[in-house]
Amino acid sequence: QCDLTGWWENDLGSKMHVSEVDSQGNFSGEYHTAVSSTQKPIKPSPLIGTQHLDEDGRCTFGFTVNWNKFSDSTSVFVGQCFAGDNREDILQTAWLLREKVDSLHDDWKATR
Amino acid sequence: QCDLTGWWENDLGSKMHVSEVDSQGNFSGEYHTAVSSTQKPIKPSPLIGTQHLDEDGRCTFGFTVNWNKFSDSTSVFVGQCFAGDNREDILQTAWLLREKVDSLHDDWKATR
Amino acid sequence: QCDLTGWWENDLGSKMHVSEVDSQGNFSGEYHTAVSSTQKPIKPSPLIGTQHLDEDGRCTFGFTVNWNKFSDSTSVFVGQCFAGDNREDILQTAWLLREKVDSLHDDWKATR
Amino acid sequence: QCDLTGWWENDLGSKMHVSEVDSQGNFSGEYHTAVSSTQKPIKPSPLIGTQHLDEDGRCTFGFTVNWNKFSDSTSVFVGQCFAGDNREDILQTAWLLREKVDSLHDDWKATR
Repeated sequence: QCDLTGWWENDLGSKMHVSEVDSQGNFSGEYHTAVSSTQKPIKPSPLIGTQHLDEDGRCTFGFTVNWNKFSDSTSVFVGQCFAGDNREDILQTAWLLREKVDSLHDDWKATR
Repeated sequence: QCDLTGWWENDLGSKMHVSEVDSQGNFSGEYHTAVSSTQKPIKPSPLIGTQHLDEDGRCTFGFTVNWNKFSDSTSVFVGQCFAGDNREDILQTAWLLREKVDSLHDDWKATR
Repeated sequence: QCDLTGWWENDLGSKMHVSEVDSQGNFSGEYHTAVSSTQKPIKPSPLIGTQHLDEDGRCTFGFTVNWNKFSDSTSVFVGQCFAGDNREDILQTAWLLREKVDSLHDDWKATR
Repeated sequence: QCDLTGWWENDLGSKMHVSEVDSQGNFSGEYHTAVSSTQKPIKPSPLIGTQHLDEDGRCTFGFTVNWNKFSDSTSVFVGQCFAGDNREDILQTAWLLREKVDSLHDDWKATR
């Protein structure tokens, strides 16, 4: 199966820790990003999300990271777990980063 | 300011209800989608997310919808609130939908 | 059917002009953007692309805009034509904007 | 510098050949995809695009692939060249794939 609980690291060196996943699939945790689009010092940031509980080890999941400790932005990640060889699971994710803009007129460029 | 608590409706006719936002900005709720990429009957689906608590009414936010009541998919939404005229707030969002695929080889087409 | 030749305008006030579409579906034209992520004065910019030639009026298409007259960026648009009421055709598009970054390390944030 | 002329291969095993880049940065070529979301046999497909001509080897570019030889879809790619070690250049790209849908009501799910 696939339980997101624990530590994960991505190709950019960012790490995240997921605390216990509850019976609904909900979880919280902390994201330690290695990269940032702001100049302020990076701080570990809270995340909250949910995963499917399929027993085939290929569940989809999603979570939100609230960067409020050092920025006005919010990120979302969505992905799927793949049970890897030698018990190493792989998470494939896509993400969006929303930066705060002043008005609706600038909305077109707020998401990357 | 901008508090996501309450009912929201988008251009496609999908509706969501956000329950109380806690002091960290975390919230849960229910998403009633009007559209689906599966054939199964649509059911209201749980959402969980977080928002900034800026007092300027233009906070960013994000949330995850777990479609496990009728599909293997997960969606994430990220966006920003804009205080509108006549007290009508507008939420601008972008989203990703992750569908479950059988193997890493099909990962490229799993997200829309 | 759907021939992209002519002038089109989007919700943001950007306009584009597509010159003659050739027998392969290829076309060129000029994009007059109303918005920009740079500070430099906006200039009309060349576009080049291709469309399907289905006769049902719902062809998909794509094109690239080279912003080199005032920036280092490139945009791509992909979409579909929908024959509208009263002979007004509607183009639905999605886009990506690539900004130049200094190194692979910054690649993660280069596209919005 | 960075000239897209020649053969390129991506992680999925797809290959593309770019013919001569003209003085405006425009080019055409052929895309040999290794993956497809349709069941029909894959065929090499024409591409058309444009690149910046910066002399620092880090130009941005974009191109459209018209899949009309075996599908109703169109893809766009946008990216940047990075001069790699040992003269191997690396292209970093993001893409969108537009599939044809029957009506505006299905537009929301047409792009991945």
